[in-house]
Amino acid sequence: MDEGTKTETSSHAIRSPGMHSDKSENTVYVGKKGVMGYVLAVITQFNNGAGEVTIKARGKVISQAVDVAEIVRSRFMPEAKVSNISIKTEELTSEDGRLAKVSAIEITLSK
Amino acid sequence: MDEGTKTETSSHAIRSPGMHSDKSENTVYVGKKGVMGYVLAVITQFNNGAGEVTIKARGKVISQAVDVAEIVRSRFMPEAKVSNISIKTEELTSEDGRLAKVSAIEITLSK
Repeated sequence: MDEGTKTETSSHAIRSPGMHSDKSENTVYVGKKGVMGYVLAVITQFNNGAGEVTIKARGKVISQAVDVAEIVRSRFMPEAKVSNISIKTEELTSEDGRLAKVSAIEITLSK
Repeated sequence: MDEGTKTETSSHAIRSPGMHSDKSENTVYVGKKGVMGYVLAVITQFNNGAGEVTIKARGKVISQAVDVAEIVRSRFMPEAKVSNISIKTEELTSEDGRLAKVSAIEITLSK
């Protein structure tokens, strides 16, 4: 497509060594609370020095994760870029021991 | 795995009916019907000779679009790869003329 876009090939994350090497420090898990709370969490991590923040979600709240990324970018941090998006299937064990498959997404924003 | 990501913000509204380019022939729009119907639509397009199929969704059904891609890949076409995922914000005009912003996703599967 035509826009100023960026394509990366990665199954490895593109983290700059040095800053925050611990992956989980720069992660925001999106759940069922209001979208703006997660937006704030992402912005806070950037303000605390993170060079990138990964937004993760599973199941029905995947659409909220996309909302969070888009709101951060369009309203608060126009300089931020989506540097990676990946989808996968996770297997969860329910209480009765059965496996349930659920889709998951990870969206990485970089500034 | 190689996955590309792309990001764009489009302020133009949805395509008007009848303006389908060649590209849209290989597109499956995910809505509120059952996920397996869209899975079948994707597989049918591949079986009809498409080298890639793009799954598109807006708003709350974004999570179903991810389900469709994951089910096609994990259950029916293990050779298919996610070649691109992009997210964007679309602006829709509601009946009373107000603009509503909605997140959208496009997931391209290639075989």
